[in-house]
Amino acid sequence: MTEFSRTKRSEVHRLPTRGTFDRETIHSILDEGLVCHIGFIFEGSPFVIPTGYGRSGDQLLIHGSAASRMLRALSAGAEACITVSLLDGLVLARSAFHHSVNYRSVVILGKGTVIDEPEAKMEALSVITDRLIPGRWDGIRLPSPQEMKGATVMSFAIAEASGKVRVGPPIDDEEDYLLPIWAGVLPLALAPGVPIADEKNLPGVELPHYVRNYKR
Amino acid sequence: MTEFSRTKRSEVHRLPTRGTFDRETIHSILDEGLVCHIGFIFEGSPFVIPTGYGRSGDQLLIHGSAASRMLRALSAGAEACITVSLLDGLVLARSAFHHSVNYRSVVILGKGTVIDEPEAKMEALSVITDRLIPGRWDGIRLPSPQEMKGATVMSFAIAEASGKVRVGPPIDDEEDYLLPIWAGVLPLALAPGVPIADEKNLPGVELPHYVRNYKR
Repeated sequence: MTEFSRTKRSEVHRLPTRGTFDRETIHSILDEGLVCHIGFIFEGSPFVIPTGYGRSGDQLLIHGSAASRMLRALSAGAEACITVSLLDGLVLARSAFHHSVNYRSVVILGKGTVIDEPEAKMEALSVITDRLIPGRWDGIRLPSPQEMKGATVMSFAIAEASGKVRVGPPIDDEEDYLLPIWAGVLPLALAPGVPIADEKNLPGVELPHYVRNYKR
Repeated sequence: MTEFSRTKRSEVHRLPTRGTFDRETIHSILDEGLVCHIGFIFEGSPFVIPTGYGRSGDQLLIHGSAASRMLRALSAGAEACITVSLLDGLVLARSAFHHSVNYRSVVILGKGTVIDEPEAKMEALSVITDRLIPGRWDGIRLPSPQEMKGATVMSFAIAEASGKVRVGPPIDDEEDYLLPIWAGVLPLALAPGVPIADEKNLPGVELPHYVRNYKR
């Protein structure tokens, strides 16, 4: 394995840790994540539940069983904090203190709205499914009226939202740069493996192009 | 094999067959994750903040700036919900309804304790650093008294804890297996890239073996 040295481009990012309210940045983070962590209060205690989601314009969409504790709480008007975080690398500094990770995260605060109108609800489910894997919605068996009934779909305004991004190399204290300690970044990324076909697939059914060519 | 006892709060509500209270399973999930999502209540609202962590026996360890809102709230005795989730794959069913993800997650509930005693605090920091990348602690510049002072380290009992795991192929409704739709699993895993050496590394400083051989 060889090492790349930092390039001029990676030098552009001068502020290693920064908050952002930039819509494009926040949207791009949401459009890369697959799972959000939803915080809510139930009987006085905080809970954090991971779940899939989708984005449509300035709305974050989630769905789940109408029977779930989280969706019952949220549909009853509980405040939510929805956090999406992407881990981009381990930041290895010369000092323990300056170890960190490169990441991009978004925090959305607010209450959600239940989407009941059938067409809007179906559209939201298509957005959530295509967030998982773009192209999937067309060609699968769509939800039955019974399935629609059992699912709660909610929309959260991406309005009270902030992003946080750390990029670039470790930043050590000035005197620590004299230490003979290897410092740098170990990049990390979620990577797809080889698709595993269900053994109950009908003969002749082919791997769809959007699975074969899935990229992150 | 030992199990954590269930409480009303930690009981797995949705799809309880996926729930587990097995200590070994819960520990193995915690030992694979790099980031936890901590939920807490601040001025009546829920917040979810991603952060690094470590595990020492039945204790989950976190650290951060003493000035952070989260650590101020938690060290003042706020209830926390600490969630670690690992995404293992996209589960592509024949029906929209049965789309899912394969995942392993742990939810820990409770209040934390601040670790003040210097030796225990230093030990906790070593555990957190070595969770990021095993082997890193030995050989880096250790925290100064000043840095120790500015950091808050907390410990949470892994006691009121539950895990949830989904593995395996999609499960469709019986009649949907007759549909000529490709179904299966697209595996996903966090994968390391090529290490990026800090350009300020001293000449002759070599890439450590635990970075070169880093595996997940």
